[in-house]
Amino acid sequence: MSEQNDPFLQVLDRYAAAVGDKDVEGFLSIYGEDVHIFDVWDTWSLQGKAAWRDVVSDWFSSPEKLVVTIDEARSTSSTDLVVGHAFIRYAAISPDGRELRSVGNRLTQVLRKTDASWSISHEHSSVPIDHSSTRAIFRRATAV
Amino acid sequence: MSEQNDPFLQVLDRYAAAVGDKDVEGFLSIYGEDVHIFDVWDTWSLQGKAAWRDVVSDWFSSPEKLVVTIDEARSTSSTDLVVGHAFIRYAAISPDGRELRSVGNRLTQVLRKTDASWSISHEHSSVPIDHSSTRAIFRRATAV
Repeated sequence: MSEQNDPFLQVLDRYAAAVGDKDVEGFLSIYGEDVHIFDVWDTWSLQGKAAWRDVVSDWFSSPEKLVVTIDEARSTSSTDLVVGHAFIRYAAISPDGRELRSVGNRLTQVLRKTDASWSISHEHSSVPIDHSSTRAIFRRATAV
Repeated sequence: MSEQNDPFLQVLDRYAAAVGDKDVEGFLSIYGEDVHIFDVWDTWSLQGKAAWRDVVSDWFSSPEKLVVTIDEARSTSSTDLVVGHAFIRYAAISPDGRELRSVGNRLTQVLRKTDASWSISHEHSSVPIDHSSTRAIFRRATAV
């Protein structure tokens, strides 16, 4: 499937663009009203766009520029359901263009087609845990 | 959808039974040959049943009895694609029946229908990370 026709890749493009612009409403426009989220941070699960808006508004209030990079995006589709997974890297950039820090995530998204457009109905993002130390691993061994 | 007709609930039942029996081949029988896994532990991703067999064989070699409990399982389906998510709790039980320890996970599974049967094509399991301490959170605030 070409990128032009893959709803997952199209959603990832809109995701990355909205994060780069810190555009809360543009970001939320790719999510369904009743979205269910297993987010990497703090909470076991979130339900509904209002709860997600609170998290995203807080995230986008940071002073640094945010840059999203996607790697190894793969999707599988049916008529009205698409599932994709990818590696995603979030970098914080200073006003003078230096990368201050970054974190990698694994990302799974489920898209449903409603009214001829696709929106995210379920999202699961995480980092793996080192079994011996029980500490989070924020970077892949290979570069994202 | 009744449990009898929901492929996700059927797969979860087989998952829990195989863990309880420490039945490596029974457990692997619910996964597709080319399964892609974002596991909670150690690795950023795994691809293929052979890689997953190594992880599962090691897991099932523990001396304690393992008990799986599922909560809040929800699924969405299309003709040949089902996606489900749930909370899952793993408890280690001593030979005299005491619970030695437990850990909770968030679980997302993608099932594909091939040759009239369903198998897992993608699995994502994780725990959330506390943002201030960057430590893993292994228990839900509410009991699983």
